[in-house]
Amino acid sequence: MSTDTKMRGGIDLGGTKIEAIIVDERNEVRGSGREPTPTDGGPAGVAAQMAKVLKEAAAAAEVEPASLAGVGVGSPGDVNDEAGTVANAGNLPDWTDAFSLAASLKDALGCPVHLGNDVQVATRAEAELGAGTDFSSLIMVAWGTGIGGGIVLDGRPWLGRGAAGEIGHTVVKDGGAHCRCGRRGCLEAYAGRGSMEDRARREVAKGAQTDLFTIMEQRGRTRLTSSIWAHALERGDHLAHELIDRAVNALGVGIASAVNLLDVEAVIIGGGLGVRFGQPMAERIEAAMKPHLFNDFRPPAVRVAGLGDLGGAMGAALLATG
Amino acid sequence: MSTDTKMRGGIDLGGTKIEAIIVDERNEVRGSGREPTPTDGGPAGVAAQMAKVLKEAAAAAEVEPASLAGVGVGSPGDVNDEAGTVANAGNLPDWTDAFSLAASLKDALGCPVHLGNDVQVATRAEAELGAGTDFSSLIMVAWGTGIGGGIVLDGRPWLGRGAAGEIGHTVVKDGGAHCRCGRRGCLEAYAGRGSMEDRARREVAKGAQTDLFTIMEQRGRTRLTSSIWAHALERGDHLAHELIDRAVNALGVGIASAVNLLDVEAVIIGGGLGVRFGQPMAERIEAAMKPHLFNDFRPPAVRVAGLGDLGGAMGAALLATG
Repeated sequence: MSTDTKMRGGIDLGGTKIEAIIVDERNEVRGSGREPTPTDGGPAGVAAQMAKVLKEAAAAAEVEPASLAGVGVGSPGDVNDEAGTVANAGNLPDWTDAFSLAASLKDALGCPVHLGNDVQVATRAEAELGAGTDFSSLIMVAWGTGIGGGIVLDGRPWLGRGAAGEIGHTVVKDGGAHCRCGRRGCLEAYAGRGSMEDRARREVAKGAQTDLFTIMEQRGRTRLTSSIWAHALERGDHLAHELIDRAVNALGVGIASAVNLLDVEAVIIGGGLGVRFGQPMAERIEAAMKPHLFNDFRPPAVRVAGLGDLGGAMGAALLATG
Repeated sequence: MSTDTKMRGGIDLGGTKIEAIIVDERNEVRGSGREPTPTDGGPAGVAAQMAKVLKEAAAAAEVEPASLAGVGVGSPGDVNDEAGTVANAGNLPDWTDAFSLAASLKDALGCPVHLGNDVQVATRAEAELGAGTDFSSLIMVAWGTGIGGGIVLDGRPWLGRGAAGEIGHTVVKDGGAHCRCGRRGCLEAYAGRGSMEDRARREVAKGAQTDLFTIMEQRGRTRLTSSIWAHALERGDHLAHELIDRAVNALGVGIASAVNLLDVEAVIIGGGLGVRFGQPMAERIEAAMKPHLFNDFRPPAVRVAGLGDLGGAMGAALLATG
């Protein structure tokens, strides 16, 4: 076992899975682990699972967790790195009150633990190590169950009063589709994987034909994952194409509005759907933005997240660089 | 005549009027002048008029133009301070090619001349001297013939690649109203004074009743100015109320989307209409934003521009502080 204290850990805490990596000083991945996010046991149960996944990654990297320079965590919810707590972690079990995640992990792992917002750390990872390295200003769009966003201006994250980046709740159509947030016409109401699934279920209830749910059942899933959407598109499923077209249109409108406001150099498309669909879909989003760009003679570059699914964990590991 | 070189000049070059001021080192206005913007004579004619207005202001302040520390200009169009040129100045006569405005004014006035974008200098003025002094991050919305925007983050202007702030071309309704920019559903298509007038004319052509154009004719105007709108509202004019309600709703949607993205501390409502309507309308816009704010428990402060109509000229004068 190595005791190289220049290695760092990164944990990406997602609603369905926990991903952990160990990176060296060049940010090369030396080991990784992945497990489902527990659906019960509350925050303590989730923290125990996080420690377990990090230990798996450390074992693969042949390093002791206690010898790591530190472990970073990218988490949903209200993250307070100073206090070491996470509250209101949306999709996670019974996680409303502030829970001392940093202390809990430090006890289990024996090294310093740093906390960050999941989308913000993924944005930093793309800016420093991924598709954004050529740009000093960018917007990252995390296209998944919801739609998150991260902003980098002059090479630094812009967090506002802590809550900047909610591009998913840009209103793309006043009075439009109902959003899971309770409002109407948000980008996420058209393009979030959750909202798309809600709509697919309503269409099926009204008699629409689709293979989406058949594929889901064949794979033993209970939700329409990114892979299921991709598979249905490949099969030429009409409803899947219709809902994705609608999502791409809304992404074009919402991202173009953000670009009109901020005039950034680049837009990075990440998140589960963004990474799964890759470059061809990023090009479709770029084309959908074009009609709405005020300075359409100088559009921003549009890129797929370069770190793929690992962006969250890579960004988390960057938190531990001090 | 004083030869106090700590005094500075500011010129606000608008589509209908040119406003100039002289300020002292405490940014107190010591003299001012105002003339219509020439409708012919091209850029050289406009520059000559600008010099004349600045000389009027200097005479009122009892200072020689040549003794000023400098004169700043807030201009529409593509402003290049380094080259001293302005190109594509939208509403100004025959002003497409780059014109050496700085050199022309320097010849006429005998002091250094600095150029800036009109909305950007007005934003800086509000941030440093007006309604924004308590905030380190804000969005300025210049609500006039069009809708411009300026952004201040961490106390500094955010210009992007030079064209940031186009909040008027945030899409508030995908596929919605036609905008003067040629696109659809832009905030400006609903709330710009130009678009509102276009719509009022169309409604009248379809038989709608309104006093708007009667008031316009009584005042010898050819356009619906901010005062005409205000007067019609006071009279209870139905069409005026309907169009303003529609504008306020669109402003609420578009500004809330910008706040969701940037999480700024404050929103400042300026421009001809914003200043003319004042606090009661700012409160209506604040209320219209509320339903669309993702973090509605912590809305930004919403304020009317504190420098009123002088913001543009005050901001221009700040350019000359070096």
